[in-house]
Amino acid sequence: MTNVNLLIFDQFETLDLFGPVEVLGRIDTMNLCYYSLHGGLVQSRDKANIMTGKISDADARGILLVPGGMGTRPLVSDDEFISVLRSLAEQSLNVLTVCTGSALLAKTGLLNKIRATSNKKAFDWVRSVNRDVIWMEKARWVHDGKFYTSSGVSAGIDMALGYVADSFGKDQALEIAGHIEYVWNQDSSDDPFSAKGKS
Amino acid sequence: MTNVNLLIFDQFETLDLFGPVEVLGRIDTMNLCYYSLHGGLVQSRDKANIMTGKISDADARGILLVPGGMGTRPLVSDDEFISVLRSLAEQSLNVLTVCTGSALLAKTGLLNKIRATSNKKAFDWVRSVNRDVIWMEKARWVHDGKFYTSSGVSAGIDMALGYVADSFGKDQALEIAGHIEYVWNQDSSDDPFSAKGKS
Repeated sequence: MTNVNLLIFDQFETLDLFGPVEVLGRIDTMNLCYYSLHGGLVQSRDKANIMTGKISDADARGILLVPGGMGTRPLVSDDEFISVLRSLAEQSLNVLTVCTGSALLAKTGLLNKIRATSNKKAFDWVRSVNRDVIWMEKARWVHDGKFYTSSGVSAGIDMALGYVADSFGKDQALEIAGHIEYVWNQDSSDDPFSAKGKS
Repeated sequence: MTNVNLLIFDQFETLDLFGPVEVLGRIDTMNLCYYSLHGGLVQSRDKANIMTGKISDADARGILLVPGGMGTRPLVSDDEFISVLRSLAEQSLNVLTVCTGSALLAKTGLLNKIRATSNKKAFDWVRSVNRDVIWMEKARWVHDGKFYTSSGVSAGIDMALGYVADSFGKDQALEIAGHIEYVWNQDSSDDPFSAKGKS
């Protein structure tokens, strides 16, 4: 089994987490684990209170997923959180971030000189967090090395399916998309929500 | 404020709930409330433990949303649950069900002679729960009277946006879809996952 460590925090964006969770939970060899910095109940933007373990108890040799949301704004300045995230991301086989979760990962420095993307509505702020990242303004999601970063909210579902396609084959990604009756936006470069969208 | 009463149960399908939650949570006048039959932590198919209140504490004069998932299979035979659901659904302004959540609502009898749909992969089972419902085999979602029922999992996002369009105008639905970077499948009759899919 491969652990999928889901690192959440107060005011995370609900669907940033649960879109990819719905996809990754359908891989038989993946074990979903919900963590936060100190453990306990964590509240999403939409008032869902989720029980979490302490991130220090996670087995880091797995997949790491970090959602975005308004909760990322204070966290980029939280040295303890960023330090823990850096250590965990370094040890993880793959790191997936959704939306402004990319800003948290960028703050660790691990995305320096790596191609990445984020929510188009928060792009200027995300870029300001670390200008040494190669920010892609027009991308549904970006895969570079062990890192997958996606655009806003729903793009996380497309990225998770892209991750499944890369790791387990496109047939498995299509099968999951069929089971969840999701019209997969398969082309990671097709980004209708970018200012450069349909050009 | 209008309460959105989210009625969940063990082994509910994660995205059935959190897709519509992401959409409805963006309406300023909606207040999201998480409930289960007896309250306490409820676990989704993907091992998310969500804190809930007791459904008997809900203000029923709101919107009711019921997800699907494997947890619906035992619940259609749970007289207490179905009785509580019937009472709540009768009092609610609108009732939205996703996937096999439609089977639970069908069991109450309130969908008799009403058009409704459900997950295409579980359709025969859902139909068997109550054959007096006018089951629509090819529909992304169906709106009939105060009831909205959707096809599987991701279709709940499209239905929620359809509900927003009907209640608050299409511009608001499109604005929310843009914020969550979701490619809205706007045509409720376009159902690529039906056996009659693209015919």
